[in-house]
Amino acid sequence: MLKPDPGRLLAVAREEALLGKSEGGVPIGAALFTVDGELLGRGHNRRVQDDDPSMHAETAAFRNAGRRPHYRDTVMVTTLSPCWYCSGLVRQFSISHVVIGEARTFSGGHDWLAGLGVGITILDDPACVTLMTEFIEERPDLWFEDIGVETS
Amino acid sequence: MLKPDPGRLLAVAREEALLGKSEGGVPIGAALFTVDGELLGRGHNRRVQDDDPSMHAETAAFRNAGRRPHYRDTVMVTTLSPCWYCSGLVRQFSISHVVIGEARTFSGGHDWLAGLGVGITILDDPACVTLMTEFIEERPDLWFEDIGVETS
Repeated sequence: MLKPDPGRLLAVAREEALLGKSEGGVPIGAALFTVDGELLGRGHNRRVQDDDPSMHAETAAFRNAGRRPHYRDTVMVTTLSPCWYCSGLVRQFSISHVVIGEARTFSGGHDWLAGLGVGITILDDPACVTLMTEFIEERPDLWFEDIGVETS
Repeated sequence: MLKPDPGRLLAVAREEALLGKSEGGVPIGAALFTVDGELLGRGHNRRVQDDDPSMHAETAAFRNAGRRPHYRDTVMVTTLSPCWYCSGLVRQFSISHVVIGEARTFSGGHDWLAGLGVGITILDDPACVTLMTEFIEERPDLWFEDIGVETS
Protein backbone atom coordinates (compact mmCIF):
# COMPACT_ATOMS: atom_id res chain seq x y z
CA MET A 1 0.00 0.00 0.00
CA LEU A 2 1.33 3.39 -1.05
CA LYS A 3 0.70 6.11 1.54
CA PRO A 4 1.31 9.33 -0.43
CA ASP A 5 -1.04 10.25 -3.30
CA PRO A 6 0.70 8.90 -6.42
CA GLY A 7 -0.62 11.78 -8.53
CA ARG A 8 1.14 14.27 -6.26
CA LEU A 9 4.43 12.35 -6.64
CA LEU A 10 4.03 12.12 -10.40
CA ALA A 11 3.53 15.89 -10.66
CA VAL A 12 7.14 16.36 -9.44
CA ALA A 13 8.51 13.85 -11.98
CA ARG A 14 6.47 15.52 -14.75
CA GLU A 15 7.91 18.93 -13.86
CA GLU A 16 11.37 17.38 -14.20
CA ALA A 17 10.47 15.89 -17.59
CA LEU A 18 9.28 19.29 -18.82
CA LEU A 19 12.50 20.88 -17.57
CA GLY A 20 14.45 18.28 -19.55
CA LYS A 21 12.36 19.04 -22.63
CA SER A 22 12.96 22.80 -22.26
CA GLU A 23 16.70 22.09 -22.20
CA GLY A 24 16.52 20.09 -25.44
CA GLY A 25 17.02 16.79 -23.65
CA VAL A 26 15.20 13.49 -23.38
CA PRO A 27 11.93 14.47 -21.61
CA ILE A 28 11.85 11.91 -18.82
CA GLY A 29 11.69 12.96 -15.17
CA ALA A 30 11.85 11.14 -11.85
CA ALA A 31 11.97 11.70 -8.11
CA LEU A 32 12.76 9.68 -5.02
CA PHE A 33 10.49 10.06 -2.00
CA THR A 34 10.26 8.36 1.37
CA VAL A 35 7.24 6.08 1.76
CA ASP A 36 5.79 8.91 3.87
CA GLY A 37 5.96 11.31 0.94
CA GLU A 38 9.06 13.34 1.82
CA LEU A 39 11.06 14.36 -1.26
CA LEU A 40 14.65 13.05 -1.18
CA GLY A 41 15.84 13.92 -4.67
CA ARG A 42 14.51 14.78 -8.12
CA GLY A 43 16.09 14.80 -11.56
CA HIS A 44 15.74 14.28 -15.27
CA ASN A 45 17.57 12.54 -18.07
CA ARG A 46 20.86 14.37 -18.74
CA ARG A 47 22.22 12.58 -21.82
CA VAL A 48 22.15 15.70 -23.98
CA GLN A 49 22.75 18.33 -21.28
CA ASP A 50 25.83 16.68 -19.72
CA ASP A 51 26.81 14.42 -22.61
CA ASP A 52 26.24 11.66 -20.05
CA PRO A 53 24.68 8.36 -21.14
CA SER A 54 24.54 7.11 -17.54
CA MET A 55 22.10 9.75 -16.33
CA HIS A 56 18.61 8.48 -16.94
CA ALA A 57 15.86 10.25 -15.01
CA GLU A 58 15.80 7.64 -12.24
CA THR A 59 19.58 7.53 -11.80
CA ALA A 60 19.64 11.35 -11.70
CA ALA A 61 16.97 11.39 -8.96
CA PHE A 62 18.85 8.66 -7.09
CA ARG A 63 22.12 10.60 -7.35
CA ASN A 64 20.46 13.80 -6.19
CA ALA A 65 18.96 12.00 -3.18
CA GLY A 66 22.53 11.42 -2.00
CA ARG A 67 24.01 8.66 0.11
CA ARG A 68 21.70 6.73 2.42
CA PRO A 69 22.37 3.60 4.49
CA HIS A 70 19.51 1.86 2.62
CA TYR A 71 16.49 2.60 0.43
CA ARG A 72 13.86 0.17 1.73
CA ASP A 73 11.70 3.08 2.87
CA THR A 74 11.70 4.89 -0.48
CA VAL A 75 9.43 5.25 -3.52
CA MET A 76 10.71 6.03 -7.01
CA VAL A 77 8.36 7.97 -9.27
CA THR A 78 9.12 8.26 -12.97
CA THR A 79 7.20 9.60 -15.94
CA LEU A 80 7.98 6.46 -17.99
CA SER A 81 8.25 2.72 -17.32
CA PRO A 82 11.81 2.16 -16.03
CA CYS A 83 14.24 0.62 -18.50
CA TRP A 84 16.30 -2.43 -17.43
CA TYR A 85 19.11 -0.21 -16.19
CA CYS A 86 16.76 1.72 -13.90
CA SER A 87 14.81 -1.42 -12.95
CA GLY A 88 18.12 -2.95 -11.89
CA LEU A 89 18.72 0.11 -9.71
CA VAL A 90 15.34 -0.41 -8.02
CA ARG A 91 16.09 -4.09 -7.41
CA GLN A 92 19.64 -3.66 -6.13
CA PHE A 93 18.70 -0.92 -3.68
CA SER A 94 15.44 -2.55 -2.60
CA ILE A 95 13.36 0.52 -3.41
CA SER A 96 9.94 -0.60 -2.21
CA HIS A 97 7.57 1.00 -4.71
CA VAL A 98 7.68 2.50 -8.22
CA VAL A 99 5.05 4.97 -9.44
CA ILE A 100 5.02 5.14 -13.26
CA GLY A 101 3.47 7.92 -15.36
CA GLU A 102 2.91 5.68 -18.36
CA ALA A 103 4.03 2.40 -19.90
CA ARG A 104 2.42 2.80 -23.36
CA THR A 105 5.28 4.34 -25.34
CA PHE A 106 7.93 2.13 -23.68
CA SER A 107 7.80 -0.85 -21.36
CA GLY A 108 10.90 -1.74 -19.37
CA GLY A 109 11.29 -3.97 -16.31
CA HIS A 110 8.25 -3.07 -14.20
CA ASP A 111 6.63 -6.53 -14.53
CA TRP A 112 9.92 -8.13 -13.46
CA LEU A 113 10.02 -5.84 -10.42
CA ALA A 114 6.40 -6.62 -9.55
CA GLY A 115 7.28 -10.34 -9.63
CA LEU A 116 10.06 -9.63 -7.13
CA GLY A 117 7.65 -7.98 -4.72
CA VAL A 118 8.20 -4.31 -5.62
CA GLY A 119 4.96 -2.30 -5.50
CA ILE A 120 4.09 -0.95 -8.95
CA THR A 121 1.53 1.80 -9.65
CA ILE A 122 0.95 2.75 -13.30
CA LEU A 123 -1.05 5.97 -13.64
CA ASP A 124 -1.46 6.00 -17.43
CA ASP A 125 -1.16 9.77 -17.37
CA PRO A 126 -2.22 11.39 -20.70
CA ALA A 127 0.29 14.26 -20.34
CA CYS A 128 3.16 11.79 -19.95
CA VAL A 129 1.97 9.79 -22.97
CA THR A 130 1.78 12.95 -25.12
CA LEU A 131 5.22 14.13 -23.99
CA MET A 132 6.90 10.87 -25.03
CA THR A 133 4.83 10.35 -28.19
CA GLU A 134 5.83 13.78 -29.49
CA PHE A 135 9.47 13.30 -28.48
CA ILE A 136 9.78 9.91 -30.20
CA GLU A 137 8.22 11.38 -33.37
CA GLU A 138 10.53 14.40 -33.32
CA ARG A 139 13.80 12.78 -32.22
CA PRO A 140 13.76 9.03 -32.89
CA ASP A 141 17.57 9.08 -33.15
CA LEU A 142 17.97 10.46 -29.63
CA TRP A 143 15.30 8.18 -28.20
CA PHE A 144 16.82 4.99 -29.60
CA GLU A 145 20.27 6.11 -28.48
CA ASP A 146 18.90 6.61 -24.97
CA ILE A 147 17.69 3.03 -24.73
CA GLY A 148 20.62 1.53 -26.65
CA VAL A 149 18.60 0.34 -29.62
CA GLU A 150 20.65 -0.02 -32.79
CA THR A 151 18.80 1.57 -35.73
CA SER A 152 21.37 1.43 -38.52
CA MET B 1 33.88 -15.85 -28.41
CA LEU B 2 35.86 -13.02 -26.87
CA LYS B 3 38.62 -11.72 -29.15
CA PRO B 4 40.82 -9.70 -26.75
CA ASP B 5 42.71 -11.47 -23.96
CA PRO B 6 40.42 -11.16 -20.91
CA GLY B 7 43.41 -10.91 -18.55
CA ARG B 8 44.62 -7.81 -20.38
CA LEU B 9 41.17 -6.22 -20.06
CA LEU B 10 40.96 -7.13 -16.37
CA ALA B 11 44.34 -5.49 -15.69
CA VAL B 12 42.79 -2.11 -16.59
CA ALA B 13 39.79 -2.65 -14.29
CA ARG B 14 42.11 -3.77 -11.49
CA GLU B 15 44.18 -0.59 -11.86
CA GLU B 16 40.96 1.38 -11.47
CA ALA B 17 40.01 -0.60 -8.37
CA LEU B 18 43.41 0.14 -6.81
CA LEU B 19 43.00 3.83 -7.66
CA GLY B 20 39.64 3.76 -5.87
CA LYS B 21 41.23 2.08 -2.87
CA SER B 22 44.02 4.68 -2.74
CA GLU B 23 41.35 7.40 -2.64
CA GLY B 24 39.59 5.74 0.32
CA GLY B 25 36.70 4.59 -1.82
CA VAL B 26 35.00 1.29 -2.62
CA PRO B 27 37.76 -0.66 -4.46
CA ILE B 28 35.87 -1.80 -7.54
CA GLY B 29 37.04 -0.90 -11.04
CA ALA B 30 35.69 -1.37 -14.54
CA ALA B 31 36.32 -0.50 -18.17
CA LEU B 32 34.40 -0.60 -21.43
CA PHE B 33 36.19 -1.90 -24.53
CA THR B 34 35.13 -2.61 -28.08
CA VAL B 35 34.96 -6.31 -28.95
CA ASP B 36 38.24 -5.70 -30.79
CA GLY B 37 39.94 -4.59 -27.58
CA GLU B 38 39.94 -0.81 -28.01
CA LEU B 39 39.48 1.03 -24.69
CA LEU B 40 36.39 3.29 -24.70
CA GLY B 41 36.23 4.33 -21.06
CA ARG B 42 37.46 3.28 -17.62
CA GLY B 43 36.37 4.19 -14.10
CA HIS B 44 35.88 3.15 -10.51
CA ASN B 45 33.24 3.37 -7.84
CA ARG B 46 32.87 7.02 -6.75
CA ARG B 47 30.43 6.77 -3.82
CA VAL B 48 32.91 8.19 -1.31
CA GLN B 49 34.91 10.44 -3.61
CA ASP B 50 31.93 12.28 -5.16
CA ASP B 51 29.32 11.49 -2.52
CA ASP B 52 27.53 9.83 -5.42
CA PRO B 53 25.60 6.59 -4.84
CA SER B 54 24.88 6.22 -8.58
CA MET B 55 28.52 5.80 -9.61
CA HIS B 56 29.37 2.14 -9.38
CA ALA B 57 32.50 1.07 -11.25
CA GLU B 58 30.55 -0.08 -14.31
CA THR B 59 28.38 3.05 -14.52
CA ALA B 60 31.52 5.20 -14.15
CA ALA B 61 33.22 3.35 -17.03
CA PHE B 62 30.02 3.63 -19.10
CA ARG B 63 29.78 7.38 -18.40
CA ASN B 64 33.43 7.90 -19.27
CA ALA B 65 32.98 6.03 -22.56
CA GLY B 66 30.57 8.80 -23.57
CA ARG B 67 27.60 8.77 -25.91
CA ARG B 68 27.44 6.08 -28.58
CA PRO B 69 24.62 5.17 -30.98
CA HIS B 70 24.66 1.62 -29.53
CA TYR B 71 26.82 -0.75 -27.45
CA ARG B 72 26.37 -4.10 -29.21
CA ASP B 73 30.06 -4.13 -30.12
CA THR B 74 31.32 -3.55 -26.58
CA VAL B 75 32.71 -5.59 -23.68
CA MET B 76 32.41 -4.53 -20.02
CA VAL B 77 35.18 -5.68 -17.71
CA THR B 78 34.76 -5.35 -13.97
CA THR B 79 36.74 -6.55 -10.97
CA LEU B 80 33.57 -7.89 -9.28
CA SER B 81 30.38 -9.64 -10.38
CA PRO B 82 28.02 -6.85 -11.50
CA CYS B 83 25.21 -5.99 -9.08
CA TRP B 84 21.62 -5.82 -10.37
CA TYR B 85 21.97 -2.12 -11.16
CA CYS B 86 25.02 -2.73 -13.33
CA SER B 87 23.58 -5.95 -14.78
CA GLY B 88 20.52 -3.94 -15.81
CA LEU B 89 22.86 -1.49 -17.56
CA VAL B 90 24.43 -4.36 -19.51
CA ARG B 91 21.01 -5.71 -20.51
CA GLN B 92 19.47 -2.36 -21.50
CA PHE B 93 22.40 -1.33 -23.66
CA SER B 94 22.96 -4.81 -25.13
CA ILE B 95 26.61 -4.93 -24.10
CA SER B 96 27.67 -8.22 -25.65
CA HIS B 97 30.15 -9.61 -23.12
CA VAL B 98 31.11 -9.12 -19.46
CA VAL B 99 34.55 -10.09 -18.12
CA ILE B 100 34.46 -10.49 -14.32
CA GLY B 101 37.47 -10.50 -12.00
CA GLU B 102 35.75 -12.56 -9.35
CA ALA B 103 32.31 -13.62 -8.13
CA ARG B 104 33.31 -15.15 -4.77
CA THR B 105 32.87 -12.18 -2.45
CA PHE B 106 29.66 -11.00 -4.17
CA SER B 107 27.43 -12.47 -6.85
CA GLY B 108 25.08 -10.15 -8.73
CA GLY B 109 23.22 -10.67 -12.00
CA HIS B 110 25.80 -12.43 -14.18
CA ASP B 111 23.83 -15.72 -14.39
CA TRP B 112 20.73 -13.75 -15.41
CA LEU B 113 22.77 -12.03 -18.14
CA ALA B 114 24.20 -15.36 -19.34
CA GLY B 115 20.63 -16.69 -19.66
CA LEU B 116 19.82 -13.69 -21.87
CA GLY B 117 22.71 -14.48 -24.21
CA VAL B 118 25.36 -12.13 -22.84
CA GLY B 119 28.84 -13.69 -22.92
CA ILE B 120 30.23 -14.08 -19.39
CA THR B 121 33.87 -14.77 -18.52
CA ILE B 122 34.75 -15.18 -14.83
CA LEU B 123 38.51 -15.09 -14.25
CA ASP B 124 38.51 -15.88 -10.50
CA ASP B 125 41.47 -13.56 -10.08
CA PRO B 126 43.18 -13.93 -6.66
CA ALA B 127 44.19 -10.24 -6.50
CA CYS B 128 40.56 -9.18 -7.01
CA VAL B 129 39.38 -11.63 -4.32
CA THR B 130 41.95 -10.32 -1.83
CA LEU B 131 41.07 -6.68 -2.58
CA MET B 132 37.37 -7.20 -1.83
CA THR B 133 37.89 -9.58 1.10
CA GLU B 134 40.09 -7.02 2.86
CA PHE B 135 37.72 -4.17 2.04
CA ILE B 136 34.64 -5.99 3.35
CA GLU B 137 36.51 -6.84 6.55
CA GLU B 138 37.72 -3.27 7.03
CA ARG B 139 34.63 -1.32 5.96
CA PRO B 140 31.50 -3.50 6.16
CA ASP B 141 29.39 -0.34 6.67
CA LEU B 142 30.54 1.16 3.38
CA TRP B 143 30.24 -2.12 1.52
CA PHE B 144 26.66 -2.79 2.61
CA GLU B 145 25.73 0.82 1.86
CA ASP B 146 27.15 0.39 -1.64
CA ILE B 147 24.89 -2.56 -2.39
CA GLY B 148 21.89 -1.19 -0.50
CA VAL B 149 21.83 -3.88 2.18
CA GLU B 150 20.19 -2.76 5.41
CA THR B 151 22.33 -3.76 8.38
CA SER B 152 20.60 -2.07 11.31
